[in-house]
Amino acid sequence: MGSGLDDDLVGGFFADPRQRVIFCGRGRLQSWLDVEAALARTQADLGLIPAGAAARIASCCDASAYDLAALGEEASALQHPIVAVVHALERAVGERWSRFVHYGATSQDIADSGQALQLRAGLDGLEPDLLAAQRAAAQLACRHRETLEAGRTRGQHAVPITFGLKAASWTDELSRLRERIAQARPRLLALQISGAAGTLAAYGPRWRELRAGVARELGLSEPEQPWHASRDRIGELGALMSLLAMAIERIGAEVVRLQSTDLAEVAERPAPAHVGSSAMPQKRNPQVAEGLVAKARLIHGPAGVLLRNGAHQHERDVGAWMVEWIAVPELLLLAGAGAAELRELLEGLHVDPEQMLANLGRTGGGILAEAVMMALDERLGRDRAHRLLAELSAESRLTGRPFASVVAADPRVRDALSPAELREALDPRGWIGAAPELSDLAAGVDAPSAPQSSTST
Amino acid sequence: MGSGLDDDLVGGFFADPRQRVIFCGRGRLQSWLDVEAALARTQADLGLIPAGAAARIASCCDASAYDLAALGEEASALQHPIVAVVHALERAVGERWSRFVHYGATSQDIADSGQALQLRAGLDGLEPDLLAAQRAAAQLACRHRETLEAGRTRGQHAVPITFGLKAASWTDELSRLRERIAQARPRLLALQISGAAGTLAAYGPRWRELRAGVARELGLSEPEQPWHASRDRIGELGALMSLLAMAIERIGAEVVRLQSTDLAEVAERPAPAHVGSSAMPQKRNPQVAEGLVAKARLIHGPAGVLLRNGAHQHERDVGAWMVEWIAVPELLLLAGAGAAELRELLEGLHVDPEQMLANLGRTGGGILAEAVMMALDERLGRDRAHRLLAELSAESRLTGRPFASVVAADPRVRDALSPAELREALDPRGWIGAAPELSDLAAGVDAPSAPQSSTST
Amino acid sequence: MGSGLDDDLVGGFFADPRQRVIFCGRGRLQSWLDVEAALARTQADLGLIPAGAAARIASCCDASAYDLAALGEEASALQHPIVAVVHALERAVGERWSRFVHYGATSQDIADSGQALQLRAGLDGLEPDLLAAQRAAAQLACRHRETLEAGRTRGQHAVPITFGLKAASWTDELSRLRERIAQARPRLLALQISGAAGTLAAYGPRWRELRAGVARELGLSEPEQPWHASRDRIGELGALMSLLAMAIERIGAEVVRLQSTDLAEVAERPAPAHVGSSAMPQKRNPQVAEGLVAKARLIHGPAGVLLRNGAHQHERDVGAWMVEWIAVPELLLLAGAGAAELRELLEGLHVDPEQMLANLGRTGGGILAEAVMMALDERLGRDRAHRLLAELSAESRLTGRPFASVVAADPRVRDALSPAELREALDPRGWIGAAPELSDLAAGVDAPSAPQSSTST
Amino acid sequence: MGSGLDDDLVGGFFADPRQRVIFCGRGRLQSWLDVEAALARTQADLGLIPAGAAARIASCCDASAYDLAALGEEASALQHPIVAVVHALERAVGERWSRFVHYGATSQDIADSGQALQLRAGLDGLEPDLLAAQRAAAQLACRHRETLEAGRTRGQHAVPITFGLKAASWTDELSRLRERIAQARPRLLALQISGAAGTLAAYGPRWRELRAGVARELGLSEPEQPWHASRDRIGELGALMSLLAMAIERIGAEVVRLQSTDLAEVAERPAPAHVGSSAMPQKRNPQVAEGLVAKARLIHGPAGVLLRNGAHQHERDVGAWMVEWIAVPELLLLAGAGAAELRELLEGLHVDPEQMLANLGRTGGGILAEAVMMALDERLGRDRAHRLLAELSAESRLTGRPFASVVAADPRVRDALSPAELREALDPRGWIGAAPELSDLAAGVDAPSAPQSSTST
Repeated sequence: MGSGLDDDLVGGFFADPRQRVIFCGRGRLQSWLDVEAALARTQADLGLIPAGAAARIASCCDASAYDLAALGEEASALQHPIVAVVHALERAVGERWSRFVHYGATSQDIADSGQALQLRAGLDGLEPDLLAAQRAAAQLACRHRETLEAGRTRGQHAVPITFGLKAASWTDELSRLRERIAQARPRLLALQISGAAGTLAAYGPRWRELRAGVARELGLSEPEQPWHASRDRIGELGALMSLLAMAIERIGAEVVRLQSTDLAEVAERPAPAHVGSSAMPQKRNPQVAEGLVAKARLIHGPAGVLLRNGAHQHERDVGAWMVEWIAVPELLLLAGAGAAELRELLEGLHVDPEQMLANLGRTGGGILAEAVMMALDERLGRDRAHRLLAELSAESRLTGRPFASVVAADPRVRDALSPAELREALDPRGWIGAAPELSDLAAGVDAPSAPQSSTST
Repeated sequence: MGSGLDDDLVGGFFADPRQRVIFCGRGRLQSWLDVEAALARTQADLGLIPAGAAARIASCCDASAYDLAALGEEASALQHPIVAVVHALERAVGERWSRFVHYGATSQDIADSGQALQLRAGLDGLEPDLLAAQRAAAQLACRHRETLEAGRTRGQHAVPITFGLKAASWTDELSRLRERIAQARPRLLALQISGAAGTLAAYGPRWRELRAGVARELGLSEPEQPWHASRDRIGELGALMSLLAMAIERIGAEVVRLQSTDLAEVAERPAPAHVGSSAMPQKRNPQVAEGLVAKARLIHGPAGVLLRNGAHQHERDVGAWMVEWIAVPELLLLAGAGAAELRELLEGLHVDPEQMLANLGRTGGGILAEAVMMALDERLGRDRAHRLLAELSAESRLTGRPFASVVAADPRVRDALSPAELREALDPRGWIGAAPELSDLAAGVDAPSAPQSSTST
Repeated sequence: MGSGLDDDLVGGFFADPRQRVIFCGRGRLQSWLDVEAALARTQADLGLIPAGAAARIASCCDASAYDLAALGEEASALQHPIVAVVHALERAVGERWSRFVHYGATSQDIADSGQALQLRAGLDGLEPDLLAAQRAAAQLACRHRETLEAGRTRGQHAVPITFGLKAASWTDELSRLRERIAQARPRLLALQISGAAGTLAAYGPRWRELRAGVARELGLSEPEQPWHASRDRIGELGALMSLLAMAIERIGAEVVRLQSTDLAEVAERPAPAHVGSSAMPQKRNPQVAEGLVAKARLIHGPAGVLLRNGAHQHERDVGAWMVEWIAVPELLLLAGAGAAELRELLEGLHVDPEQMLANLGRTGGGILAEAVMMALDERLGRDRAHRLLAELSAESRLTGRPFASVVAADPRVRDALSPAELREALDPRGWIGAAPELSDLAAGVDAPSAPQSSTST
Repeated sequence: MGSGLDDDLVGGFFADPRQRVIFCGRGRLQSWLDVEAALARTQADLGLIPAGAAARIASCCDASAYDLAALGEEASALQHPIVAVVHALERAVGERWSRFVHYGATSQDIADSGQALQLRAGLDGLEPDLLAAQRAAAQLACRHRETLEAGRTRGQHAVPITFGLKAASWTDELSRLRERIAQARPRLLALQISGAAGTLAAYGPRWRELRAGVARELGLSEPEQPWHASRDRIGELGALMSLLAMAIERIGAEVVRLQSTDLAEVAERPAPAHVGSSAMPQKRNPQVAEGLVAKARLIHGPAGVLLRNGAHQHERDVGAWMVEWIAVPELLLLAGAGAAELRELLEGLHVDPEQMLANLGRTGGGILAEAVMMALDERLGRDRAHRLLAELSAESRLTGRPFASVVAADPRVRDALSPAELREALDPRGWIGAAPELSDLAAGVDAPSAPQSSTST
């Protein structure tokens, strides 16, 4: 009965199974139990509850011991999932210590802190794939530092580039993405121990030690203020995932284009059992790349929802808060699959330099008009050079004669440039500028760089 | 291992179980099989395939006969869910007739038509709840046609209204929502029998009879043109669901406000086992209303994704199309629950006229400043009347004395109005204008009205 | 000092000058004055105010008589634009009749009704361009009913189509768009005469005649209920504009692709003074098509804002309402330019059938694999036919030999098909199916069709 | 003829005049000219162009010397604003040096670098208002560290808080916002000197020195790779502005609520000429707070557009890029006004402690049910305590008797608690927990804190 990302038939195309373990109902339950256990342990350390209670509570905090479906039904009946879980935990703990379960806590404390634990596991899961994808892009940049390709702007052949330069641009964007996630982690992975309306009253006067202790115990950052109703932290998660979506859509869509029959410059590694099409056996579909595009667009849905969900009312606003219960897991399931498939795509990408070179020649040299113009510039002045090249380009287009021939035959060009100079201007190898060196710069891929200083800008 | 809307612990707070039956993996599979069966039957009717083949195929089109998990795995391996299903269907049909399975079809034909079947069932499921919600709102309008309440604009007490008028506004918005859905159905519930790139070539020369026949067989509208890449139909689904979200968020958020401790004018019927709060037993939480707010905000996620997903490339664009596989089910699961809970909320809404009256008095009559001003207008001219009332309102606010007393004590007022006239102006019953009659107008709730003519506007 | 859509330097690339006349500050002011005049006239007709007052008020309702900048400053000082305008109108009317200005009205009544007037003019302005664009697409469909082109799915050459079929799909989508706008007009173009909180109290007991009269006077639909806080009408405007954006982005992006150097199948008519590029004179940039893409994406911004802005509080919510003051004009300015440029693009589109044919041949016949497979299907069974074609396609791809030669040389094919049969299967003219007839269907372009009945679906 | 944010009548309610100076057409032009000048100067420093050329070019780079309207018309005719500007600059420079204008440059280099300059000025303009707003919130936190207020969760009175705690939460969110902007600046404020398709070919072999030099000259960060098509930097701007919108909507909407007639706990400082309402003189409208809500919702429009606009095609994609020309200025105009008004709101906020205390008493002590429960917990066990309090709360609600009286009269309570203990539990001053200390923590407002290390999380 799964639907959407959990649909047995199609869910596997969208959702990462590792993130699913973290963000499924059982993962959620475990995160809550982890918080309850850490709270009890810290309270016991501070002498606020008996050590025996904490030990007993912690021993009952294994999610696999609970019947999830029954908990779900109880949650619906009580109209409150966390209350249902606390009741179940109390029953498991038994009469002697049950009153120390969830001691002084409010439900959103448990859920927000639990979500931070899930998010830590989720982000930890994303990072290796993003790093590997960045490395794979860097390797493409190295390997193809001089592989000629048509540079296309506005859909038009513009000037020659190298495929390595394109890959370097992917490396660069992934690097910024990882940097942003690293900078945001302390804000995202924050404890919530704040009490019913943020005063921590029921936690008692030693709230500072308690809050710090639970943060330490769980490995979360300790926020200065309660954030029950201040959800920019979660909005930022949406922002980060949208930025991840930007990267995977750009790269995925570029591969779809480059793999098209009309370009055929790259191809993703087909799955062993991949079938082209039920009707058209000749097709070589960019399955993984298309999947990246789809995931990216889907990610913007819940991401945008979280970014627009900031106006929580008063001290806690459950209508707004509940939105996160769905949007956060969806984001990580999609992002996890996106990161993994981006890695897969880039690690397995087949590049066809010959086809790139063939395509580069489609304008019969027209792609080097800028180079010819710059060569003529000194002799004719820019205006005349630009007008002349525009005229010759149009002539080539209208007559179908190769641009290079048209140029070589023009007396004005011949007056200005020697045959050797013209040959040099029409050699794409001579007009790739900084591309190989830019590829080299992209080669160094590391852990997310330390946050850059903002002083100079 | 369910997550998001399928999370065992919290999914029940968001997803409609009836819509889940339609939009889960098995429902999807059944919709595809229904299309395959109708295609085969129509092809047999036209003599394009043997009658025996069609009969055999149709007999194998019961989704419950298939192992969904295995199909899902095969789909992942083949990177194509529909091909996996066609293969399974061929195996079930057996060697003799298997070549007539999916005859001439392309995978998106099956999936788009199947989705139209799911959407028909989904919209059919929404309508009774929306109608019932509209009726419940209309009943509230009738019952409270004269129940006085403070009209609030910009958060300020403005003039008296009736609660019936507020409910009439809900009725009215729901009526427009249902009208739009009815108008959109022929566009939404459209067959796709178009072939690999829209030419229907593989369906053979009798494509017109075939297309019309399958449409008839499935009860879908027959579109003039292929729409593999023309997805405004699905974008419109997103638009409709966003408009549904507007309605449920408005009503849900209004009930949250009206049920707040500080207003306490309405209360939703509590669930039998409802627990207020783990920590604060005095609270009476607007559980259902908050759930409506949450669903509404979530709906805008996939709805916005579909509305921005129009630019399919060339004849078919799978990266863009796959987006629908997730966004469409999510929309209906959320909308189904939203419609059902809106009905539940409105059918069970408890209204407290005494508290409304008490709140109306909070300004000590200030809420009738407009009425007093209109009474003074003829005697003093509007400008003087407005300035006088502004002065008296400020005096009442600053001194804390009731507005009515301040006004009654003012010599300029006493010069202009007799005590009876002033009493009349300060009686909220005399300043509710058209509210009762507007409530009466809202009472007639029917099937979605026939599309209005646009001639006059 | 203009910015954004009003930026002197770039605003002209985005905003329609005709819509700007309607939606600029002066257009807004005129719409308000039109409502004030109609209100006064109707009140005079009903004997509620003196005829002389109405005549005098109406005579002062020409926006060109007011100093807009001064009004803007007064609006800022008063924190209320409509109050500023009412004051100015009162001053213009003069002491004798000024108390009958804005009689019984609330500011949002004037602004909502005025906005409906602006929207009517705005939609009236869109329709001719949308109709002309649809007609131009239909003419392309007719003219190219048999112009062969590669059908591309998932970026891959799939089967042959005609360019006419592609244009027919554009026609079809524009037809649905116009139908939706026509259906929505009565909901969108609605009067607001409702009073301070929807009770019409200050309008007096003859509110029904008054409301109907003003509606008649202004040519707006008369809504049953006040809609100050029920903004689905405006949300629907957002939805319609998003659907318009879907259409213009799809067509614009398709032209960008088809005009790319690598495809070069169509070209937009260049502007007389168009310069390709400052650096690359050979380029032929798809300027108008790109502009459509940009406008489409921008439209989703304010459109999405309006669709998510439904939850107005209580009887009137100015924070939410103000959003419309900016989002509504932006939508129409962008949409107006989008519709005009779509028309321009389609009316001037240059199509290159030779290049289309050349591109169709890029797979050396591989694009006809489906046709060959269907021909072999009867002889070999589908499975064997599919496997055989997949093998031959791969061979063609790997060896670089044309698909047609590889197929012709294969003994299994030669056993199954005669040379004539194979030749027929490899002729693209023979595998375009219904494409010409579908183009013919698209030819009939009319006024938006009467709303379709929903009975069958 | 201004419209939207430039509408003379209403634009002043939405757009910041200081940001308008930066982002209007003239500001845009100046930013481009600044880049052209810096490029020429650096090229002259490197000996790539004559020093005289650079001097002459720089002397012509004052935007006030150009006729903006004429430039706009030329831009439309040429279909290219930057080419129009370059032509105008060449004309101004004169024949002798004009060929060194824009030397080696591509239009997007100029525009992207210019936009970075505009963004730097724009962000520099935001920061003082955000800092002042944060300080004002911190002062409210200090001043009201013990001002009792009802803590409201889910719209219900939950437990007592202080108003200082609420203000501390605002401080905290604004602090994170400023931290994020500071971290993002180096990514956002990045030079673009990359050439026609990212190879810098036309800039010549000394591109490294050139790029570094222009970056130094302009005070922008020097990016490793070209980013013509890698727009996550601009997507991040959208993200930051959405996060700013979250903050201003939350605070604005909270003030609207707290200023409502029914709560009346705070009030914004009215503008000198503020008029309440044309019809209802008693109203005290939350004008500034509503304006914040409106701006926040509008911001999400262009912000979301930028976040979804990542998939630029190939090396440069003008359809996607043009989107930024409109969305970026709109964001800063709205954000600038939002930041300024947030500051104004918080600096002038009137707080009414007496009304807060009165409202706190609305439940007759019920808001202290948690405190009573915790007191009873040790004596009765949690379950019994919770059930007892729920019973007494319901009794209070149903009978209308104050909760405190109901509790005091209950024999079970009297058995468990002494009158002094009960009095203590029912004193709100005793149940505000950490609120005063949390306010103290919020007091320290500084420059955005150095980026936090991510090691521990």
